Amino acid sequence: MPNQFDPPSGTRDFLAAEFGARERVFAVLRSVFASYGFEPLQTPAFERVDVLLGKYGDDADKLVFKILRRGEHEASGEADLALRYDMTVPLARVAAAYGGRLPTPYKRYAMGSVWRADRPGRGRFREFTQCDIDTLGSTSALADAEVLCTHHDAMAALGLTDFTIRVNSRQLLSGLLEVFAVPAELGAGVLTSLDKLDKMAPADVVAELTGRGLGAGAAAELVGTMTADDAGERIRTALKPSETGMAGLEEVDRLVALVTAQVPPGRVTFEPRMVRGLSYYTGPIWELTAAVVPGSIGGGGRYDHLIAQLGGPDVPATGSSLGIERILMLLHDEAAGRPGRIDVAVTVLADDLAGQSFALAGVARTAGLRASVYLGASGKLGKQLRWAADQGARWCLIYGTAERDAGTVTVRDLVSAEQETVPAAEVAEYLASKAAAADA
Amino acid sequence: MPNQFDPPSGTRDFLAAEFGARERVFAVLRSVFASYGFEPLQTPAFERVDVLLGKYGDDADKLVFKILRRGEHEASGEADLALRYDMTVPLARVAAAYGGRLPTPYKRYAMGSVWRADRPGRGRFREFTQCDIDTLGSTSALADAEVLCTHHDAMAALGLTDFTIRVNSRQLLSGLLEVFAVPAELGAGVLTSLDKLDKMAPADVVAELTGRGLGAGAAAELVGTMTADDAGERIRTALKPSETGMAGLEEVDRLVALVTAQVPPGRVTFEPRMVRGLSYYTGPIWELTAAVVPGSIGGGGRYDHLIAQLGGPDVPATGSSLGIERILMLLHDEAAGRPGRIDVAVTVLADDLAGQSFALAGVARTAGLRASVYLGASGKLGKQLRWAADQGARWCLIYGTAERDAGTVTVRDLVSAEQETVPAAEVAEYLASKAAAADA
Repeated sequence: MPNQFDPPSGTRDFLAAEFGARERVFAVLRSVFASYGFEPLQTPAFERVDVLLGKYGDDADKLVFKILRRGEHEASGEADLALRYDMTVPLARVAAAYGGRLPTPYKRYAMGSVWRADRPGRGRFREFTQCDIDTLGSTSALADAEVLCTHHDAMAALGLTDFTIRVNSRQLLSGLLEVFAVPAELGAGVLTSLDKLDKMAPADVVAELTGRGLGAGAAAELVGTMTADDAGERIRTALKPSETGMAGLEEVDRLVALVTAQVPPGRVTFEPRMVRGLSYYTGPIWELTAAVVPGSIGGGGRYDHLIAQLGGPDVPATGSSLGIERILMLLHDEAAGRPGRIDVAVTVLADDLAGQSFALAGVARTAGLRASVYLGASGKLGKQLRWAADQGARWCLIYGTAERDAGTVTVRDLVSAEQETVPAAEVAEYLASKAAAADA
Repeated sequence: MPNQFDPPSGTRDFLAAEFGARERVFAVLRSVFASYGFEPLQTPAFERVDVLLGKYGDDADKLVFKILRRGEHEASGEADLALRYDMTVPLARVAAAYGGRLPTPYKRYAMGSVWRADRPGRGRFREFTQCDIDTLGSTSALADAEVLCTHHDAMAALGLTDFTIRVNSRQLLSGLLEVFAVPAELGAGVLTSLDKLDKMAPADVVAELTGRGLGAGAAAELVGTMTADDAGERIRTALKPSETGMAGLEEVDRLVALVTAQVPPGRVTFEPRMVRGLSYYTGPIWELTAAVVPGSIGGGGRYDHLIAQLGGPDVPATGSSLGIERILMLLHDEAAGRPGRIDVAVTVLADDLAGQSFALAGVARTAGLRASVYLGASGKLGKQLRWAADQGARWCLIYGTAERDAGTVTVRDLVSAEQETVPAAEVAEYLASKAAAADA
């Protein structure tokens, strides 16, 4: 049940463990992106409303968080700014703003929060991390292949192996509509229905197609071709009369060949039924699916005119988006960071020993370890040892009057419960060697 | 002159170089914070308006970016959410929400964007990074000392050495008001005036104090004491009749002693004139100044009741904030990352060689190098070599028909302009050894 101290609906607080797990994933992705020469771009959380709104249609606009004007204008109830909805509109603005000062092609990644006023649900948030890689300014098939391989390597670097990349082409789909004589005005709807062949029975899709106004014969033949055991071959044959369709087939074959040579067998397949909902794609399209989650965990394609439609320059573009929030749910955080909050806990057994205890924590830090003194009010050793264990510390430095008088420190190993007496001057060296042994 | 493609007023786009410089600074800070056992906390960009507003007074509320309600409620012109203004209000909410599930004490850092609708200016932004460390749940002077040392070590780890930490105490200031018989209702105003002794002539401050209603004699005596060459000694003497003042003196002396033992000489000083504007401090206060910038580059103090005032539990607290945007302006980015966008550029000299070129970039990546194929349309070697140089690549792999026929790759060192012919199967090994030699 939500209470007044929960974060706003659809948003999350990330405490240390979850923050660490997420950051480790982000670091892996940044490293893979950099290995392909993609460079980071960070834009503001909000844009002017005229930059953001009207780019993806009314349904998308409804999901935009708008920011009220301020001061005397607040009472107008009008918005002048809005939180970014995706990373592509800001990219279009940056491409327009920096133009020739950007490298050509401009290969960038963006990883950060986007905000959508969607109904929150399992795995669906109002504030979530978007992770995009895009190349602006190249029409080369190699640019598509590079984006796709980067996407693939990112998944692999995260330790995910059980995933498939399905490749298709918008041109191929246009060719299909052409050879099956689908009227132009029905095209988009027909593709939307075909996209459901994964989840719906062929007969139901045929019914939906005829409901959209397609002739019963054409609908049955189209669905029959797409669902045949040898669908790939039948589509290749069917497309022969269409120049667009053959061009699409060629771009799919080329992309699959380029990528197949770089990735383990079976990862990349031609999937003629895969449509992807977004109408702005102009060339190859792809989608990543993992066995363990329904739906896709990422995808993308070539979108040669979108940047101009979003207000940027008219540059060819190709890109891919990782569903990082879904991927994070998939990952068991095996590669956890250093356990515990600190490595070394230091007792404070009396007020007049506090300065020396404080200094001992500093000594532990010079040995490369995370260290903290006890900050509570109890002077009891037992309570302070429990605190040390709660922090996940490996060692506790015990420093009482006996130690002060002897010029020593008692080092307790909290795993073995063994204690050693170490000369105060040798504590750094002692801890460094113990830490090296523990790491080995 | 701003244009329609600039980011919104007071916000910035961070392209690769600046993003990299900022991230390197953030990584250093995270590492220092972790070395003291401070753990990360990330809260949403926005909070409910009732959580955010009314916490720091009307002037602060005016700076809050409010988010319009959505859907049918948008027309009301009302806001239900607002972008976070600082990191302390979210901390109070988290302390209330997670309570006993947080460690005791709760030592956390927060580093992320905050938003204030301030008038933009040099070094003042509407979206900027706030960097806070705080300890909740400890009244120990060691907690203050730890925060201050963490703050100090963070500056030092960034390579900043020419800075000073000035320490004072709210209790000490209360004692001063007491022994100089300042009426309670004038206290806050008198402290505000005293804080100006750094920039204003003593006589002007005396005039301001009498303008506030303080007697001329008391004003002159107070300012005389504060500006004397032996101000520290005179204040110690003056405070003797005040229990509060003496307690403040003691806490300053203790804190300075604890920190002085940990930092280079001269870094920490007692500064009785330093007030800090924020009225919520209850104990020691401190401020960092650097010779090269006016004003402070960070500061903090103990604020034992603020978390409760902000809607959280009534826990003692101490914390420090780094003016990270000002610090970033100070830093020359000497520790730049790896230069250039890529290490290895690969030519694409003909369509039928593209697949092999693409694979060669993958080979370079297996050698741990950043690599990219040429994505432009020209088949000319000269143009592709210029592209390689523009990317900052160290090596260019040239792969033409001659190389294909011979089973080799020509590796050009773009620094020395020397070329070597390398068997295709040995390119990874060759590049790895060259890279190791270049790093050495």
